[in-house]
Amino acid sequence: MGLDLYLDLMSQPCRAVYIFAKKNGIPFQLRTVELLKGQHYTDSFAQVNPLRKVPALKDEDFILAESVAILLYLSHKYKTPDHWYPQDLQARAWVDEYLSWQHTALRSCCTWAMWQKMMFPVVLHQLVPQETLSYTLAELDSCLQLLETKFLRDQAFLTGPQISVADLMAITELMHPVSTGCQVFECRPKLDAWRRHVEAVVREDLFQEAHTVVLKAKDMPPLPAPTLKEKLLHSVWILLQ
Amino acid sequence: MGLDLYLDLMSQPCRAVYIFAKKNGIPFQLRTVELLKGQHYTDSFAQVNPLRKVPALKDEDFILAESVAILLYLSHKYKTPDHWYPQDLQARAWVDEYLSWQHTALRSCCTWAMWQKMMFPVVLHQLVPQETLSYTLAELDSCLQLLETKFLRDQAFLTGPQISVADLMAITELMHPVSTGCQVFECRPKLDAWRRHVEAVVREDLFQEAHTVVLKAKDMPPLPAPTLKEKLLHSVWILLQ
Ligand SMILES: N[C@@H](CCC(=O)N[C@@H](CS)C(=O)NCC(=O)O)C(=O)O
Ligand SMILES: N[C@@H](CCC(=O)N[C@@H](CS)C(=O)NCC(=O)O)C(=O)O
Repeated sequence: MGLDLYLDLMSQPCRAVYIFAKKNGIPFQLRTVELLKGQHYTDSFAQVNPLRKVPALKDEDFILAESVAILLYLSHKYKTPDHWYPQDLQARAWVDEYLSWQHTALRSCCTWAMWQKMMFPVVLHQLVPQETLSYTLAELDSCLQLLETKFLRDQAFLTGPQISVADLMAITELMHPVSTGCQVFECRPKLDAWRRHVEAVVREDLFQEAHTVVLKAKDMPPLPAPTLKEKLLHSVWILLQ
Repeated sequence: MGLDLYLDLMSQPCRAVYIFAKKNGIPFQLRTVELLKGQHYTDSFAQVNPLRKVPALKDEDFILAESVAILLYLSHKYKTPDHWYPQDLQARAWVDEYLSWQHTALRSCCTWAMWQKMMFPVVLHQLVPQETLSYTLAELDSCLQLLETKFLRDQAFLTGPQISVADLMAITELMHPVSTGCQVFECRPKLDAWRRHVEAVVREDLFQEAHTVVLKAKDMPPLPAPTLKEKLLHSVWILLQ
């Protein structure tokens, strides 16, 4: 038994959980759930997570969904260094604020950008109107602006002088549009410096390892099964509402 | 100085914060920010919350946005009874799981239901196609199903035998569609029993007080200013992506 993590490294929050667990030397069994093969629709996965999403955690009999809850659970259980999720009242509140904000802000833009620039046209052979994509990229731009001006400001990391789980959630998110060729860091020197700080702490090899799958995604063959394609289209629609 | 809470009780997460603070006897100054009057677009409010959303908190010099972060901050700072946000590793993880899940699930359906059943047609004089509304109500139904089967199960409260901040976030959310005449509890006896447990702990008078504004919203006069109307339409579109 022990700790099982159900992940697909194509997914942003899965990459955050993966990096966090590896970086902190938390021993776990990786259970890969390939979303593009529809493995999250199986009955056996529904027993682990009735929400049918990754990431999910199974620690002996204890089952948990939602990346944020998983990160906090691991940080408490394995007593990871304080900076990841600080005890200090205000420092913790800032991490919580970011973790809460991202769900309907950065996460939604980065997911849309990835689907509209790559998944729809390349993998699902569905055209995306130019104005839809422009709208998404403008939203992504506003979110990046807030990331810099409201969160990062003049700090080394998003919520203070040291890295926290908020930085992992954010960097793995931004690698989604980056993997489709969006210029996320090019004209944003502050955000670019932050990215380098995060990569340096995480270590480059672990960062690359977590992102190999998504960075190769644009070379993926088109999806064969039409029913799977329909299911994926439906679930991404719900996800992005 | 002291603690200021910037709220509009028309907003679901603001009602959760309001009930939590009142119920726990936390002394605060209520700073009402009327969204339908566009008060969140003022420069003075942007200084408090650059995200231009309510709820927001100001505790002396410390400023915080995001309802979840605010609830946790208040629970830590004022050492509220443990059940609101339990110390126990697994109990806390379940609260975190719900707080994370709701952002893109229950919150998005309940907000859409309110806008499509009431704000668009009654306040903004915009017709909503029947199939759009049907789709939203079907999504709401799936979320309510998950609320019962994945979260509530056979417990008295959503995350265990005692009330937590998750219950406050959920009940204030559900009162949104209820205020527009949606039958949320009628054919769901388990969810209805849960609602009664929550109301009993919160106390009926405080529950009513927090919901007076939203329950009267359907009698609201149409919005006069067209520019404000456009701004609201734009921001609700982003919120609901
Ligand atoms: N709020 C959840 C979101 C999880 C989520 O949406 N996961 C996606 C992959 S990034 C997924 O499993 N999608 C499959 C589906 O929705 O069908 C979290 O942060 O863990
Ligand atoms: N994730 C935030 C959401 C806050 C939010 O969306 N607030 C809405 C009212 S419910 C708001 O202020 N909307 C104004 C706008 O978006 O222009 C939280 O939970 O506090």
